[in-house]
Amino acid sequence: MSLTTIVLGRRLANREAGGRKIGALEGLPAMGLDGLGSASYGPEAMLTVLAVAGTASLGVVQPITWIILLLLAILFASYWQTIEAYPNNGGSYIVARENLGENAGLLAAAALMLDYMLNVAVGISAGVGALTSAVPALHGYTLPLCLAILVALTLVNLRGTKESGVALGLPTYLFIATLAGILAAGIWQALGAPHPHPVTPLPPAARATAPVTLWLLVRAFAAGCTAMTGVEAVSNGVGAFREPSVRYAHRTLAAIVVVLGLLLAGIAFLAHGYGIMAMDQAKPGYQSVISQLVGAVAGRGAVYAVTIASVLAVLCLSANTSFVGFPRLCRGVAADSYLPKAFAVPGRRLVYTIGILFLAAGAGGLLIVFGGITDRLIPLFAVGAFLSFSLSQAGMAVHWHRHGRGGADRGRLGINGLGAAATSTALAVILVAKFTEGAWLTLVVIPLTLGLLLAIRRYYAGLDRQVLAGSRRRMDLADHAPPCVVIPLERWDRMAHRAVHMAARLSPDVVALHLTDLDGPDAQQHEDRLRAQWADFVERPAAEAGLRPPVLVVEGSPYRSVLAPLLREVVSLRERCPRRPVMVILSELVGGNWWEAALHTGRTQRLRAEILRHGGADVSVLVVPWQLEPPETERMLAEEEPAS
Amino acid sequence: MSLTTIVLGRRLANREAGGRKIGALEGLPAMGLDGLGSASYGPEAMLTVLAVAGTASLGVVQPITWIILLLLAILFASYWQTIEAYPNNGGSYIVARENLGENAGLLAAAALMLDYMLNVAVGISAGVGALTSAVPALHGYTLPLCLAILVALTLVNLRGTKESGVALGLPTYLFIATLAGILAAGIWQALGAPHPHPVTPLPPAARATAPVTLWLLVRAFAAGCTAMTGVEAVSNGVGAFREPSVRYAHRTLAAIVVVLGLLLAGIAFLAHGYGIMAMDQAKPGYQSVISQLVGAVAGRGAVYAVTIASVLAVLCLSANTSFVGFPRLCRGVAADSYLPKAFAVPGRRLVYTIGILFLAAGAGGLLIVFGGITDRLIPLFAVGAFLSFSLSQAGMAVHWHRHGRGGADRGRLGINGLGAAATSTALAVILVAKFTEGAWLTLVVIPLTLGLLLAIRRYYAGLDRQVLAGSRRRMDLADHAPPCVVIPLERWDRMAHRAVHMAARLSPDVVALHLTDLDGPDAQQHEDRLRAQWADFVERPAAEAGLRPPVLVVEGSPYRSVLAPLLREVVSLRERCPRRPVMVILSELVGGNWWEAALHTGRTQRLRAEILRHGGADVSVLVVPWQLEPPETERMLAEEEPAS
Repeated sequence: MSLTTIVLGRRLANREAGGRKIGALEGLPAMGLDGLGSASYGPEAMLTVLAVAGTASLGVVQPITWIILLLLAILFASYWQTIEAYPNNGGSYIVARENLGENAGLLAAAALMLDYMLNVAVGISAGVGALTSAVPALHGYTLPLCLAILVALTLVNLRGTKESGVALGLPTYLFIATLAGILAAGIWQALGAPHPHPVTPLPPAARATAPVTLWLLVRAFAAGCTAMTGVEAVSNGVGAFREPSVRYAHRTLAAIVVVLGLLLAGIAFLAHGYGIMAMDQAKPGYQSVISQLVGAVAGRGAVYAVTIASVLAVLCLSANTSFVGFPRLCRGVAADSYLPKAFAVPGRRLVYTIGILFLAAGAGGLLIVFGGITDRLIPLFAVGAFLSFSLSQAGMAVHWHRHGRGGADRGRLGINGLGAAATSTALAVILVAKFTEGAWLTLVVIPLTLGLLLAIRRYYAGLDRQVLAGSRRRMDLADHAPPCVVIPLERWDRMAHRAVHMAARLSPDVVALHLTDLDGPDAQQHEDRLRAQWADFVERPAAEAGLRPPVLVVEGSPYRSVLAPLLREVVSLRERCPRRPVMVILSELVGGNWWEAALHTGRTQRLRAEILRHGGADVSVLVVPWQLEPPETERMLAEEEPAS
Repeated sequence: MSLTTIVLGRRLANREAGGRKIGALEGLPAMGLDGLGSASYGPEAMLTVLAVAGTASLGVVQPITWIILLLLAILFASYWQTIEAYPNNGGSYIVARENLGENAGLLAAAALMLDYMLNVAVGISAGVGALTSAVPALHGYTLPLCLAILVALTLVNLRGTKESGVALGLPTYLFIATLAGILAAGIWQALGAPHPHPVTPLPPAARATAPVTLWLLVRAFAAGCTAMTGVEAVSNGVGAFREPSVRYAHRTLAAIVVVLGLLLAGIAFLAHGYGIMAMDQAKPGYQSVISQLVGAVAGRGAVYAVTIASVLAVLCLSANTSFVGFPRLCRGVAADSYLPKAFAVPGRRLVYTIGILFLAAGAGGLLIVFGGITDRLIPLFAVGAFLSFSLSQAGMAVHWHRHGRGGADRGRLGINGLGAAATSTALAVILVAKFTEGAWLTLVVIPLTLGLLLAIRRYYAGLDRQVLAGSRRRMDLADHAPPCVVIPLERWDRMAHRAVHMAARLSPDVVALHLTDLDGPDAQQHEDRLRAQWADFVERPAAEAGLRPPVLVVEGSPYRSVLAPLLREVVSLRERCPRRPVMVILSELVGGNWWEAALHTGRTQRLRAEILRHGGADVSVLVVPWQLEPPETERMLAEEEPAS
């Protein structure tokens, strides 16, 4: 068993793709992880902005959260409609492309790609933030921990995930249950006493260094908007639900939004009640907002441990959703020729290997550049997410405008229009508020990505034109003379035997070219022996079979070069048999394991490549194999063949 | 201009190989560097062993040196004869193989390979030792400096060296002149006063921790023997000299041995006179013996700087001789099939790239494992060198015994026999004396290498038998029916056009296989269109030309697999046309730069490899190229063609 097999698992046959459909109960973990996970970094991002104003800012936490919840409600209504209108695949890329045109679709695709990468980076870094809150000794290892989790997720996804209900469901429902329980308990206490006493004392609040200004509020709102990322997941995956899939998708969307809304409202209420402030993740002693909150309500006992563990699990799994979504998006974009076709090739475990590796590299780069600190990633994250929200909503508005029939659809146009207006306003606010903190970077990266996608498409289109031009004409099959064949002949062995026999089947004009680096009498003796073999083994049988005998040419090649004399022979053959193609026959050793590969120079392979590259359009290469191991046709058929 | 071109230089054509012949004046630097360089680490290695006995050991320095000089004289006489007997190439590998048999030759080859690697490591580490003696601030960077020099040497050699007289000659003659001058000056002073006062005070001598025992003397001798490494170089390269080459080679060998002997004697005399002791290179404040000696005689002025610079240059260049010798040795061994054939393939600069990289990796590994400390490498170095000396001398003795004619040759037999006895005694002493210090490692590495060489040879021989078996029989050309052809057809374009036209030239039995992953009415419509094109563009012209029309087969492949349906078609063709081979025609995109390569999936290439590997012995693949860039036949011919 090779190392690859141990790490990545055995190669999966295509028939193992398939998959079963899910309902709302499984849908919540499968599609909601990303959205629900946002509850643990969205409020924190908002509080981090407000921290400079100290405890004076606690009063505005709830008002800002109400605005965010309002926006969430608008998004909910908008996506409800998207699910109805696009029951197969309502991702922003599709919706924007179909309704707003190619460029808008690609803009959405570029925004989404960045968004997926940031989702991985933010999910992991927030998860590690929860972990280091619980185990402060690990704080110094924030970045290594982030990268270790990223590597683990990458390997798991290269193996291919089964998205089993239990693995996703258990942490998700545990997360909801523990967090909801703690929020309920906290609210119960807070209703008794407006400012309850925390069970575990809160860390000392940082001193206020700035007043609460309107600008601060705007920036806090922009940061808090990250709490909404991931809400669109259901609209991307309606096809995964059981029939009636739209109804199940609606139920799942509703469940996600309601749970997320309750978590956000609860966190905002208790942060105000207990006076919880965000801390700087880059500094030792960091406690995430959730960690402070759980400690304040329930102390640092078993409940705390279970809650933080479920937060860590949910955030890592929410990062994992990108590993499913990103390769799928890339496959779609690649299928439309905007990305290299390799993104659309399934790997050995039926996953889109290139997409997964690309995502991992991108997220790893983000984690390293930003040191694994969530707060530094947030500005970029919000821009990508709201750009794709806006494009999707605008697309839906256009959709109703074009295809709308009567009153109900006018209402739908209104809702999606409101959604588009709200999300694009939020986008504008985020861009302005977070511009200097990193949002400017997205204004560089997204257009560059867009340009790259267009350039790739242009390349493929040019190639297509080249290959299609003039193909729609009849073949001139009156000209069907066989090619002239040339065979580089190292010595007379069974490989040469096969090559010459094949040549005799294909053409009456066969030249075998033997190159020797010998000199003087040795060379003559060597040539005489080869010529005798040629006469015995080839010429005589050919004459007896009534064939024109293949010709042996012996040439000195003192510098051991094979390509040049072979190309010269090709050029001369082309002159001798005009208007007929030239075929070079090569015997190749094939198969064998890695150490056998190390023992062969690959000279034939290089020669093949050079001839194909530089021989000319009329020079083809026939490869006659010599298998180092017995071929395994049957096994390949069994492995590759779909169950029929 | 690509990065590779900038770093490694342009690709050289074969005609640029050639080379001019040298005389004794150029021969001394070209062949003597390795041997003369030894003067700067051999005596030091001896003094390092003696250091434990403190100043009490200084009295034995000269006697041990006299024994070493005696051994050197015997080696000189022996190699004098080798040069006469093997005027083309008298390397230990050849001499041992021809006279003592395959296994002895391979043993010599294995010993030499290790020896070359150690020569690189020892030369560089001793050179860096000289440098850090002069600039103590660099002492902490011993290993990085060693590796930097190794990388530089590797790059220079990958570019290919011209071995220009000046680059080698200047430092060599400077080294000889400065060192000889200082030794002469020192001896002059010492003759005046037996224990002269050093100009630069010597570092304080370490305290004696052990008495002078016979065992210590034996170990000191074993270490000092490294001063003789490299003396064999002339016998390896007699072919490089002008005619009469034997006479020039003799002169060069004599010059090397005389200079080396004088240097060794002078160093021993002055080390005793001034009371110079070796220091531990691993400790800060290290001063090499040469550095102490030069400082004592001439002070630390300009003369010191020039001398140390020439020592550094000579030691680095002596490491460089391995970069010439090792790839040449490997090429010879690979030509005899004991090493992968890749070692015998010249790279883009006409050097043996694989050999150079292998040597660099091995020497780098040694430097890292032993921390760049010369003294730790010495035990291994001496074993490899003396093993190859002994095998070469024993081989020469057998040579005279077999081919000897009369009295003079009996004398020669005597000299080489004495050489063999002396060197193998020295080898035994070295092995015993240095066993626990690292020499045991060579007893592991050399047999392992030997086993590997034999295994490689066995593999090639097995393959040869397989490929040759039964090739000496006449071809059955009565059976020359054309192959059955199958073409995987993605769509109707010019690439398909070319493939089908070629197929029509080759066989009346052509099947084009189109795989579709579409379903339902779409699939039917798609198939109808393709069939119409096929009828128009292929079937009708074929019928008009009187050919059997190629058949179009359309098959569903819901899982996008190409290999399995294609292999199934091959299997079924094999049944339909028995006893005829099957040919698969593939259109491949070829050429293009790296970013074009990234845009293509290589799916056709993988398909080709899989078919060749798993199709069976009777399934060949014809590759019809589609060049992304115009082919450059002329340029390739101009580049590759030797001047004729």
